[in-house]
Amino acid sequence: MNITTEKMRFWSPEVRELKPYVPGEQPKIQNLLKLNTNENPYPPSPKVVEAVQAILADSADVLRLYPDPDATLLKQAIAKQQNVAVSNIFVGNGSDEVLAHIFKAFFVQQQPILYADITYSFYPVYSQFFGVKTQEIPLNDHFEIIVEDYKQPNGGIIITNPNAPTSIALGLSAIEEVLQANPNSVVVIDEAYVDFGAESAVDLVGKYENLVVCQTTSKSRSLAGLRVGFAIAQPHLIAALEAVKNSFNSYPMDRFAIAAAVASFEDQTYFEAQCQKVIASRETLVANLEELGFTVLPSKANFIFASLPSKNVGELAAQLREQGIIVRYFNKPRINQFLRITVGTDEQNQRLVDTLKNTILA
Amino acid sequence: MNITTEKMRFWSPEVRELKPYVPGEQPKIQNLLKLNTNENPYPPSPKVVEAVQAILADSADVLRLYPDPDATLLKQAIAKQQNVAVSNIFVGNGSDEVLAHIFKAFFVQQQPILYADITYSFYPVYSQFFGVKTQEIPLNDHFEIIVEDYKQPNGGIIITNPNAPTSIALGLSAIEEVLQANPNSVVVIDEAYVDFGAESAVDLVGKYENLVVCQTTSKSRSLAGLRVGFAIAQPHLIAALEAVKNSFNSYPMDRFAIAAAVASFEDQTYFEAQCQKVIASRETLVANLEELGFTVLPSKANFIFASLPSKNVGELAAQLREQGIIVRYFNKPRINQFLRITVGTDEQNQRLVDTLKNTILA
Repeated sequence: MNITTEKMRFWSPEVRELKPYVPGEQPKIQNLLKLNTNENPYPPSPKVVEAVQAILADSADVLRLYPDPDATLLKQAIAKQQNVAVSNIFVGNGSDEVLAHIFKAFFVQQQPILYADITYSFYPVYSQFFGVKTQEIPLNDHFEIIVEDYKQPNGGIIITNPNAPTSIALGLSAIEEVLQANPNSVVVIDEAYVDFGAESAVDLVGKYENLVVCQTTSKSRSLAGLRVGFAIAQPHLIAALEAVKNSFNSYPMDRFAIAAAVASFEDQTYFEAQCQKVIASRETLVANLEELGFTVLPSKANFIFASLPSKNVGELAAQLREQGIIVRYFNKPRINQFLRITVGTDEQNQRLVDTLKNTILA
Repeated sequence: MNITTEKMRFWSPEVRELKPYVPGEQPKIQNLLKLNTNENPYPPSPKVVEAVQAILADSADVLRLYPDPDATLLKQAIAKQQNVAVSNIFVGNGSDEVLAHIFKAFFVQQQPILYADITYSFYPVYSQFFGVKTQEIPLNDHFEIIVEDYKQPNGGIIITNPNAPTSIALGLSAIEEVLQANPNSVVVIDEAYVDFGAESAVDLVGKYENLVVCQTTSKSRSLAGLRVGFAIAQPHLIAALEAVKNSFNSYPMDRFAIAAAVASFEDQTYFEAQCQKVIASRETLVANLEELGFTVLPSKANFIFASLPSKNVGELAAQLREQGIIVRYFNKPRINQFLRITVGTDEQNQRLVDTLKNTILA
């Protein structure tokens, strides 16, 4: 909206300069094939439904009461599934909130934090919001992280693994090298997509006092609609996150979010089966797109990053949209010849491939 | 927890100084009479249950999708109930988050913000968190706000109305006087408890370009477990809140919170009946406590602020606790001879009165 200078006087001066994050579109259109925001194509565990039903018992009377501000049951469920202690867990209203708290808790330093030039586009937004200095580190020409670049003075490091929107994973030995080279900096590994085939750094938490691992239930647990994210780290880092959280909002997790996420973490069998289905569908999708001439980066995520050298993919995205299929196109340097495509069910992926083959590229 | 200086080096320097908010206790004890966090004694509207049931249909498949980042349906429901436009509404994860965004959006100024010395104890916490300068303005000896004190240079004003923990309401003419005296400052009226008998400033929003009214569903709508708060203001102020929100967390409202809150706002009849019941119970409770020798401040909230001149009320609170009744005691200057007691059902209030009369004060 257009706000007059006169009315802008009410805004905090620093807020007038903010450039907020723009999330992937959530169109309110029926029968759309939505492959633009990396949602899981399968419903959450059936145990989630049971857990929410339990809250509704007795006229949902329990809703009149505040939730547990510490979400202890949820921390316990995550700790058990991740094989760490409850004192290693921090939870928040989606991993976006957890990341916001991470930036405030650790990254407001004299030195700039380091992150890749092509990565989650919320990082510069958080940085501006909290006054964090930043330095972007270019990925190489294959969109890979070069560990040597992360051996310079810094106020912290954040690495998305697998990276987004590129889908490429970094191995644990490379992550250990970054951790060891930066003993006085907090190194955050943002693992939003880790469950689709990459190696998690959670097992390194006991070994490195400077490591924070961040995960979400939005992708691999089919709970994007619920807003539950978490961080895993040693207790002296969790304490900083709790201090920040309790200076911002004491009760960020509502009763439904806590109960539903607990149920999801308690159903490991369902979780693993769903991840395997997505991985299998991804491999089929990649093969089919390569057959159509696409170049697809090696993905360990529930999305792929694909280019079609002969075409303007921005136009391609617009043509797909006309056919009721939405994918994500970033009109940014270095990646404006790529589309980020969420892996759907085999049927959904086939619709995408068929539409490309029979209509758009025919 | 005790963190060594050596491990503190990982924290952002400013975070090491934070003094987080301490919420009212949420004990996990059965059969406790919990009159300490101003929760409503009645369940939410039955329509809330139906709305959540609808999300669970089809294996809760919709949970795999992100919620509407703008929570448009919720804004529409609030706008209709409050008789304002959708463009006047901002929503957040509880009014605590809404208030946090308000502090960042408007109060990071050269001049200090003004608030009462006795009021919601989260205000100084937000201020420290965002680097907001503050000046506390003493209430008078009757715990009332003196409007003249809010006519000095400032970077913003926040008034809780009715005030907490004092329960005393400020009239709209006094609020208009504050608004008119401060045409270049944002004046926030925090109306968490307004539905229990005070006058809301929402009707003034059209008239004052510097007014923000903040409300919550936690008290009068029995949805503390859900975390839904909102602000009402002219669009140029809402835009600042949206810029802040979208620099922090794009999707703060989960699907359950949106749907359940919408259902609550659509059931005005239930809402009004519940508020009237709480008000009636409050008046009975006040009369019964006065009979026992308590002095009770004139309450327009769902809690009362009461002292017993002959007793140390801190000890009284401990004795009540031994009897399974929790009330809130603030060991702070000026109010350490008062207890904040949430209004329960008539039966619950009677248990409190009987316990005082027959056991503690017998």
